[in-house]
Amino acid sequence: MTLSTTRRTGAPHILDRCRELVRPALVEAVGRLHPWHAETAAFSLGWRGTGGEPLPGSQGKGVRQALAVLGAEAAGGSAADAVPGAVAVELIHTFSLIHDDIMDGDETRRRRPTLWKAYGTGPAVLAGDALFALAVSTLAEAPGDASPAAVRHLARALGDLVHGQAQDLLFETRPWSGPGAVLPHEYRAMATHKTGSLLGCAAALGAALAGAPAATVEALDLAGRHVGVAFQAVDDLLGIWGDPLETGKPVHSDLRRLKKTYPVLAALSADHPAARRLDALLSRDRPLDDRAARRAADLIDESGGRAAALGEAHEHLAAARSCLDRVPLARPAREDLLTLIPYLVDRTG
Amino acid sequence: MTLSTTRRTGAPHILDRCRELVRPALVEAVGRLHPWHAETAAFSLGWRGTGGEPLPGSQGKGVRQALAVLGAEAAGGSAADAVPGAVAVELIHTFSLIHDDIMDGDETRRRRPTLWKAYGTGPAVLAGDALFALAVSTLAEAPGDASPAAVRHLARALGDLVHGQAQDLLFETRPWSGPGAVLPHEYRAMATHKTGSLLGCAAALGAALAGAPAATVEALDLAGRHVGVAFQAVDDLLGIWGDPLETGKPVHSDLRRLKKTYPVLAALSADHPAARRLDALLSRDRPLDDRAARRAADLIDESGGRAAALGEAHEHLAAARSCLDRVPLARPAREDLLTLIPYLVDRTG
Repeated sequence: MTLSTTRRTGAPHILDRCRELVRPALVEAVGRLHPWHAETAAFSLGWRGTGGEPLPGSQGKGVRQALAVLGAEAAGGSAADAVPGAVAVELIHTFSLIHDDIMDGDETRRRRPTLWKAYGTGPAVLAGDALFALAVSTLAEAPGDASPAAVRHLARALGDLVHGQAQDLLFETRPWSGPGAVLPHEYRAMATHKTGSLLGCAAALGAALAGAPAATVEALDLAGRHVGVAFQAVDDLLGIWGDPLETGKPVHSDLRRLKKTYPVLAALSADHPAARRLDALLSRDRPLDDRAARRAADLIDESGGRAAALGEAHEHLAAARSCLDRVPLARPAREDLLTLIPYLVDRTG
Repeated sequence: MTLSTTRRTGAPHILDRCRELVRPALVEAVGRLHPWHAETAAFSLGWRGTGGEPLPGSQGKGVRQALAVLGAEAAGGSAADAVPGAVAVELIHTFSLIHDDIMDGDETRRRRPTLWKAYGTGPAVLAGDALFALAVSTLAEAPGDASPAAVRHLARALGDLVHGQAQDLLFETRPWSGPGAVLPHEYRAMATHKTGSLLGCAAALGAALAGAPAATVEALDLAGRHVGVAFQAVDDLLGIWGDPLETGKPVHSDLRRLKKTYPVLAALSADHPAARRLDALLSRDRPLDDRAARRAADLIDESGGRAAALGEAHEHLAAARSCLDRVPLARPAREDLLTLIPYLVDRTG
């Protein structure tokens, strides 16, 4: 789905630059873990396979570390200022993926087995805990006066993260329609917590570690939270209409699993005959087969759910941009942020 | 088992006093969680049942919060100084029990279902994460100049905690004898990490938050670590010879599950014919039935494993006491520590 015409070619380069800057400190931090946890961390970060073999090209984009680096640079600091924050947010992101995969029962991620599937549930619980502890320790031991404020920022984001995950898990127990139904604005609050808090924290941490004034730190935090909501809306669109070759997931995967995502909830909340047919289809409460999933996708589209999710992504992308306009930011990093943010949202897999 | 003749009547009173002092802040902290996490926290802390009903008398002893309060008082501060630290260590202790129960597959704790058994594995993983995040946040937001140092202390203990849990889980994969066998000193290192780090951290946090000099903080930390090793040795003795009515676990429970504990490892490392018979019995690598477990317990005793574990507990209790002698400590709190420490070790359930 195309949301913008910004210079997309620049974003991969920005991500690469930030990844290279942060990588030595991330490797060093992981090296401080118990060897078993260093192994599971290398697996989860996409650096190595279960046998310890290098896996070039299977690591994540490193979005959060890039936001931390750009946050520091935008605040007039250097990338080096951001490094402990960048390491911390990448570790927390990895921890949250490991534990979320256990909670969701997901068996694959980025076309590889998830950690619990490869190592067992108990070891995966512990591997996540080890990364959580390492993230806190990395930030608590960061040099400079800004470390305590950075730890407070991370702690707040962590609280929001688990809050959002609780909201998301509880959505699954609620009905599709009627008084207990999940409303689109509740879903937005969940996405702000679950996806937005760490993206916002990443940019804010970079700025805080570079000694930025509170207004700048807050603006970057809020921008990241909006990016998170936009990111989640696109993720939800891809979970229904994404190309399996690009997403690595079966077609209509979220629908088959009856996952309550933004396009579905927006569709169900619309005053449209297709919404009522969709409700009847989903309320049978058994996983959808091929035909039913295709039918549900069409009904969501017809009720306006697809357009609503696209609108949600656009709106929060614009809100993120306007956050960046509200405070003075150093030029090249500001341009990089404006290149990176739509790239994260405007994706196909 | 009786290890000392100290005034045991005083210890429950000390624990009660500290629990009362910390309780309002702990309740307030838990109240900041998502309601679902507040519910699972109240269940795990023994405050309420799965239906939300109050459960008087099923809470834990609150050892860690007491050590934090006494650490602050011993350093010349007040109990109030210690409160954020006391809350943090109780939350971390609860988090670690929740996740350990998942890893160990334990279905009951204190005669109640464990959290994963009552709420499911995914919700229990998340409930633990929520308490972890809350602990960090409580300490990071603590008033006063000592908060950053306190966070660093907690971060170090968290690193040790997950390190110790990894060591413990990996022991299960190693043989009973031969080159890969777990040696008693490795078990001691594991217990220092897994059990000692948080007890040491508790006392050290209290002192640090009260503004104690580094030497006092370190002495209290080390004392707590020794208490942890002693505590673990007694726990291991109770896991074999404890009275099921007092421990709430089946007789010989650790042996039935082929758990590698100090008395077993000490027995196997002894140059005694009974040690070789014990090795043969355990190396069949299937859970022991009543008769085999009784026989194993006898062979451990005969090889000196029971005496070695008792000796271990005595030795580390003495080491903890001598740590307290090395630094000047305020009198009534010092007496309370000397009353509490042996009480924690000298127990039957």
